[in-house]
Amino acid sequence: LEMGNWRSGSAALLFWALFALRTVEPQNVSAPNIIIMIMDDMGWGDLGVFGQPSKETPNLDMMASQGMLFPDFYTANPLCSPSRAALLTGRLPIRNGFYTTNAHARNAYTPQEIVGGISKEEILLPEILKKRGYVSKIVGKWHLGHREQYLPLERGFDQWFGSPNCHFGPYNTSYRPNIPVYNNSEMIGRYYEEFEIDERTGESNLTQIYLQEGLDFIFQQTLARQPFFLYWAPDATHAPVYASKHFLGKSQRGRYGDAVMELDYSVGQILAWLVTLGIDKNTFVFFTSDNGAALMSGPKQSGSNGPFLCGKETTFEGGMREPAIAWWPGHIPAGTVSYQLGSVMDLFTTSLTLAGLAAPFDRVIDGLDLTPSLFNNSMTDRPIFYYRGNQMMAVRVGPYKAHYWTWSNSWEEFNKGINFCPGQEVTGVTTHTQQEHTMQPLIIHLGRDPGEKYPIRYGVLSKEYQTVLSRVTLIVEEHQKTLVPGQPQLNMCDLAVMNWAPPGCERLGKCLKPPQSQPWKCDWPH
Amino acid sequence: LEMGNWRSGSAALLFWALFALRTVEPQNVSAPNIIIMIMDDMGWGDLGVFGQPSKETPNLDMMASQGMLFPDFYTANPLCSPSRAALLTGRLPIRNGFYTTNAHARNAYTPQEIVGGISKEEILLPEILKKRGYVSKIVGKWHLGHREQYLPLERGFDQWFGSPNCHFGPYNTSYRPNIPVYNNSEMIGRYYEEFEIDERTGESNLTQIYLQEGLDFIFQQTLARQPFFLYWAPDATHAPVYASKHFLGKSQRGRYGDAVMELDYSVGQILAWLVTLGIDKNTFVFFTSDNGAALMSGPKQSGSNGPFLCGKETTFEGGMREPAIAWWPGHIPAGTVSYQLGSVMDLFTTSLTLAGLAAPFDRVIDGLDLTPSLFNNSMTDRPIFYYRGNQMMAVRVGPYKAHYWTWSNSWEEFNKGINFCPGQEVTGVTTHTQQEHTMQPLIIHLGRDPGEKYPIRYGVLSKEYQTVLSRVTLIVEEHQKTLVPGQPQLNMCDLAVMNWAPPGCERLGKCLKPPQSQPWKCDWPH
Repeated sequence: LEMGNWRSGSAALLFWALFALRTVEPQNVSAPNIIIMIMDDMGWGDLGVFGQPSKETPNLDMMASQGMLFPDFYTANPLCSPSRAALLTGRLPIRNGFYTTNAHARNAYTPQEIVGGISKEEILLPEILKKRGYVSKIVGKWHLGHREQYLPLERGFDQWFGSPNCHFGPYNTSYRPNIPVYNNSEMIGRYYEEFEIDERTGESNLTQIYLQEGLDFIFQQTLARQPFFLYWAPDATHAPVYASKHFLGKSQRGRYGDAVMELDYSVGQILAWLVTLGIDKNTFVFFTSDNGAALMSGPKQSGSNGPFLCGKETTFEGGMREPAIAWWPGHIPAGTVSYQLGSVMDLFTTSLTLAGLAAPFDRVIDGLDLTPSLFNNSMTDRPIFYYRGNQMMAVRVGPYKAHYWTWSNSWEEFNKGINFCPGQEVTGVTTHTQQEHTMQPLIIHLGRDPGEKYPIRYGVLSKEYQTVLSRVTLIVEEHQKTLVPGQPQLNMCDLAVMNWAPPGCERLGKCLKPPQSQPWKCDWPH
Repeated sequence: LEMGNWRSGSAALLFWALFALRTVEPQNVSAPNIIIMIMDDMGWGDLGVFGQPSKETPNLDMMASQGMLFPDFYTANPLCSPSRAALLTGRLPIRNGFYTTNAHARNAYTPQEIVGGISKEEILLPEILKKRGYVSKIVGKWHLGHREQYLPLERGFDQWFGSPNCHFGPYNTSYRPNIPVYNNSEMIGRYYEEFEIDERTGESNLTQIYLQEGLDFIFQQTLARQPFFLYWAPDATHAPVYASKHFLGKSQRGRYGDAVMELDYSVGQILAWLVTLGIDKNTFVFFTSDNGAALMSGPKQSGSNGPFLCGKETTFEGGMREPAIAWWPGHIPAGTVSYQLGSVMDLFTTSLTLAGLAAPFDRVIDGLDLTPSLFNNSMTDRPIFYYRGNQMMAVRVGPYKAHYWTWSNSWEEFNKGINFCPGQEVTGVTTHTQQEHTMQPLIIHLGRDPGEKYPIRYGVLSKEYQTVLSRVTLIVEEHQKTLVPGQPQLNMCDLAVMNWAPPGCERLGKCLKPPQSQPWKCDWPH
């Protein structure tokens, strides 16, 4: 695959597709293609169908009208790396090791200086899908470790176009390398160098590249008649947000909205491509995001969590409730809403079920098989656990959420202007110290009170409180009793492990010299 | 019309309708029927299509998918009476007299002890529609004055089924009469007496009665081949919220959600009835609410303003942005969104245009003719003024909102637990004293910042601030220069004017003896 490949006109591509497909027979419906689209820091409230006042996501809204909407869908952690690790392993970060024990209840992720990555002991979705002949590609952000042994092609993916870390930058090569962009197992350039992002204007054509990479892969696999798994993970809505020239200035919402519009357009292109290629009836598509909108980034660089409390980094609904749409014409009933409590981890289990594969038996899998919801809109009772680092902060059971710990962020950070709940303040809930409530959890009815503003009055006289508490307590006790935390992978940092000399750098003449190794325990302030 | 009329089975009604209509010819399309559905304290975020997570309004969502959605639609005042007066006169409350000068920037309305009502000098929509032969009915809450000279049948309505005031109660007849329910010009009972509302369970069949009254009227007018105006104003979502037995406990959102579900069902019934009667292509329907959700009533008695700031009583978006859907199959394009800044006052002007009538020339009309938006989705530049009592608090011009005054409520009330912005606090914006910013208005970009959390930095160096300010200043100066405030109607209160002995009370034996007249200047704390 050449770097310039994505530039090939889609008209030409379409011509070849339709020509080639005349001789292609339908694929095996018992192993449908799977496309998981995971957005970066996009909030629940960023979609028209979820109440964004600008109503600028016609393609996603149409996807919902042709598919199934999940208004009660969650991530497994309010930060990107653990969320993505949970999705691909079907397991809570506390189990798969994507957390830290350096401090209590702190979110950790995979910046360049992280030493760790996803453990070899974990089994990733594409590794299992391979058994049924799936070809898997990740397009966009990986975020499960950037050192060679952790990269996607080591973990079941057959192809990769994208980057191991966030597109922060631009950096000065002497103290911090720019993030590489990989094509499969070799870097082909770096952000702000070969892959431009104009910090001032917000212009970058990366989403277009990621779109084209997705379309190309779908096309190739359709021709090859091999079932595929496309993990489409663009990052345009993560600060610094970007959009390509055509979309800049188009939104009512400024640059962030421009990025959303381009992603919405891209989703529309992908779905249309499936229809054009005649594989829409054989392709399961799920759209979601990795965590809530990053409200600390302000209105020009972050999205909306709708009516929910706070955002990214927190275990309030704004941090963990995600936009979610399932689409599979002819299989998933059109225009439906499922109130099933869902999780990104369910995408692991559900994908395996769709592929006719079993989940691993030798470990706890937290993901639920959503196919009963998808095909019959039935409901399965299951809890949602809200973790922040090594601490279970809250649990949702039915409409009730019990906060065992509350924390927005520290006074120290808050006073510096870092605010995870801008404009929101709920006394006793959005606390700036880590508040323990394990003896008397704060219980919220999320139906009546989606904004988590009115904890139910407790005390022996509150029948509702007591009834819920006894139900929740059993579930939490069972969870904690059986929980075996995985080895934490996000404890150590080292400047020497940064992306100084990724594979392929020699060919490009872009190898940088790493400093001496000086590992330290990473500091996770949130 | 007998009290029991609404009980007549709809199956029988349908039979007669279809039988009768075989001989009825289509009505005159140049004078379409007009139905304005105005909800009470329902918030922007209470509809699925506007992002309510429970997604429990399938009929309203379908109405939107068959019609046009207005995400930028406003009331003229964040309180019921002035809002409704503005709708029916097409004029700001500051012009039509529905405000008070007893204190600065206080919302006033029409409780039982109010002496005033809508002035005879104002011209109401049904009064003009009569010229083209429209028959007008109000079903539900009037709220423009309960003394005899102010009642609907004195002001252009031909029929009325409903009440003059809010359904507060139950009261003890010795100090405060229960609110009467009128059928046309006579009371036929009182709330909590003949018209039950069970405060404990929230059960009441009032919405069913109001639905049936609406359906009956539509049917009768269709038979009579006379164009009609139905002003459908149920009040189930105003605290104390109520629903009928079938809907109680059905919602994920508790009693408030039950009330919304019943109203949603009723809207669906009305639209379906229009289709059944074959007059849907000849009937313009508009759905909206009178002000934002009454957040001070808590999660069991109030709704959602979605991502917007604060609620009822305030001039933040949560107080004044309203859900709004226009429906007219064959005339309004289906499934469209209009970004036109709209106002309840536009319903006055638009209705007149639809009926081929001119608005009064002898006075300022604030309502805009929305037909260019409705039929061609075109946009007209116009400001939105946010008034609180006698004070223009803010103005919206394009995406920008300039706050000239900010106030949530007083410290005194706030400290008593009355909170118009529960869980929300934006420094310098949700102020607890009336803050004047006329020299340097707080300017918000509502596209980037619908939650009004990030006033644009001002100062000579902020080009955006300066550009917007000069544009807004011209508009505000023009508005204030030409403004002639109407005689304030909501200044005086008197226990003697309460609903002691409404017309018709003799026949029912329900006349009560009023106390001595002792008028006082009403106290408006908000």
